Amino acid sequence: MKYKLAFIGFGVVGQGLTEILLEKREFLKEVFDFEYTVVAISDIMKGSVYDKHGLDMEKILSLLKKGKRIDDYPTGEKGLDSLETIKNTNADIIVEITFTNVKTGLPALDHIHAAIEAGKHIVSTNKGPVVKEVSSLIKEAEEHHVHYGFEGVVLAGTPVLNLAKYCLAGNHITGFKGILNGTTNYILTRMEEDMNYDDALKKAQELGYAEADPTGDVEGLDALGKVVILTNVVLGKQISWEDVKRKGITNITTDDIKQAKKEGKRWKLIGSAEIKSDGSVNAKVEPVKLDLSDPLAGVNEAINALTFTTDELGPVTIVGPGAGKRETGYALLIDLLEINRKKL
Amino acid sequence: MKYKLAFIGFGVVGQGLTEILLEKREFLKEVFDFEYTVVAISDIMKGSVYDKHGLDMEKILSLLKKGKRIDDYPTGEKGLDSLETIKNTNADIIVEITFTNVKTGLPALDHIHAAIEAGKHIVSTNKGPVVKEVSSLIKEAEEHHVHYGFEGVVLAGTPVLNLAKYCLAGNHITGFKGILNGTTNYILTRMEEDMNYDDALKKAQELGYAEADPTGDVEGLDALGKVVILTNVVLGKQISWEDVKRKGITNITTDDIKQAKKEGKRWKLIGSAEIKSDGSVNAKVEPVKLDLSDPLAGVNEAINALTFTTDELGPVTIVGPGAGKRETGYALLIDLLEINRKKL
Repeated sequence: MKYKLAFIGFGVVGQGLTEILLEKREFLKEVFDFEYTVVAISDIMKGSVYDKHGLDMEKILSLLKKGKRIDDYPTGEKGLDSLETIKNTNADIIVEITFTNVKTGLPALDHIHAAIEAGKHIVSTNKGPVVKEVSSLIKEAEEHHVHYGFEGVVLAGTPVLNLAKYCLAGNHITGFKGILNGTTNYILTRMEEDMNYDDALKKAQELGYAEADPTGDVEGLDALGKVVILTNVVLGKQISWEDVKRKGITNITTDDIKQAKKEGKRWKLIGSAEIKSDGSVNAKVEPVKLDLSDPLAGVNEAINALTFTTDELGPVTIVGPGAGKRETGYALLIDLLEINRKKL
Repeated sequence: MKYKLAFIGFGVVGQGLTEILLEKREFLKEVFDFEYTVVAISDIMKGSVYDKHGLDMEKILSLLKKGKRIDDYPTGEKGLDSLETIKNTNADIIVEITFTNVKTGLPALDHIHAAIEAGKHIVSTNKGPVVKEVSSLIKEAEEHHVHYGFEGVVLAGTPVLNLAKYCLAGNHITGFKGILNGTTNYILTRMEEDMNYDDALKKAQELGYAEADPTGDVEGLDALGKVVILTNVVLGKQISWEDVKRKGITNITTDDIKQAKKEGKRWKLIGSAEIKSDGSVNAKVEPVKLDLSDPLAGVNEAINALTFTTDELGPVTIVGPGAGKRETGYALLIDLLEINRKKL
């Protein structure tokens, strides 16, 4: 199938996807019969460009590398904003990767609604819209016969949502627990090596894992958003932010870590949810002292992991990266290939 | 979609699948639009029965529980052998789960060829045919517009082949390493607890993990077959038994285990393959002293695990059961749902 893509937002993740698409153009055509052109890009900081016949994406990447803007591209229509690009171009798939407020879901949510109403497929790594109203978005997309793909919102390109949907199909998935935040797992890994919390956080900040204000990671807010998403999407139970108990890692001391070591255990920040016998959900984010025999206990550094509780297979765990330019760009490719596989 | 199934062979795995199909009939219809009747069973030991309108599978399971035979079923045509059942019934999917010689692939291989030539889909957990000629079987199935599903041949229902094919699509997978044999992993886990090899083997035999003659497991032959399968199917490189270096666990002593513990390491029987820079494959089965930071090091008991080396995500690991009545039965359901998803 041949698709025309428009990028809404063109930061690190969009450039990561573009690199993959450029390097793998022949491979994707040959193996999956997937062909594409990028017809438009609209980025609130870097400008916009539209050419219905397609853009030279090598040239776009090269412009940005030289510190230039997207609207320095020599040809094409300039100045279309996000919504105009979604509505008034010939793109049939919208790649939505704007900077979005994770609590309100804006502006991504507006972009997703606009794309669906325009009858265009949408793939996005933005968590906000999924946390806020995933079920109604999926329903809305189905009604408009388009696909809304969001594999990248949990564990980046590590394909947890597709694993649950396709590879574990036929199971009743009744719960999950996981290491959903790479930054805190990095910090805990350093603390296992006797570094104290402050130094470990500083190191994480130096490496770009943690932001200057690390609250979102270390207080468990990022993991909490992912628990909400997984509960809604994989367990099929509607919950929101307020329904998840939350405790971060800021109170864990090197003494706690040493004590756990003595007991043959290891502290991890675990996001989990399980469906209780009355049908309600017990969802939480908290540090848990795991037995070393737990597959999650051996997951160190900024790696993520997720264990699903299934009725036919018991626990099934997947371990992989939770962030990164190419890794998150690749999550969008999974969604694009799903659209292609379904011949939508 | 509605399908008519015929079971060729009806041992533990067939009964496991039947239990799942009976318990989940409504769920499979509602969620996946998958409906089925079983029209025929042919088992070389238990007899055979065929009714083009469908069999009462509750009744079949109940007969077997009472120690009776399949041809004690009150109605239907009796006496059809495997090939007659494949060719001369109205089944459109053949579930092939006979006792088969893993080296020659017989009789499963004959059954698979017959099904494909008759234009019928085939799902099978038999390793032999996959080890022997998977590429030509897949090609033959494609030419006849039917599906050949074999998710259960590696890690039972833990969906490694579907993970590689769908969820990791778009990656170049250049290698893998895994704990592919549950029996040896169980033995090594006991030895970690200071049990000696002979006692650990005896315990595995008591629990039904190991056979009276444990050679296939402890000498690495079972894992070797899976390395051949994964290399052919996932890496896309044709190799056979002779191309895999093999060393079992029989020479590992409790002293080796203790020494590894001191070094912060753990012995595991690892089956692996990697594509070398010249395009050839380095495939082997051997005990490896893994660092505890390796996700495979934490996989204990009879659990299996597999790490794929991918270009976009780096290592991605899946951990889950590698055997069991329901677990292997479920592997066949994955294949059935794939046929249904593709509307074949």
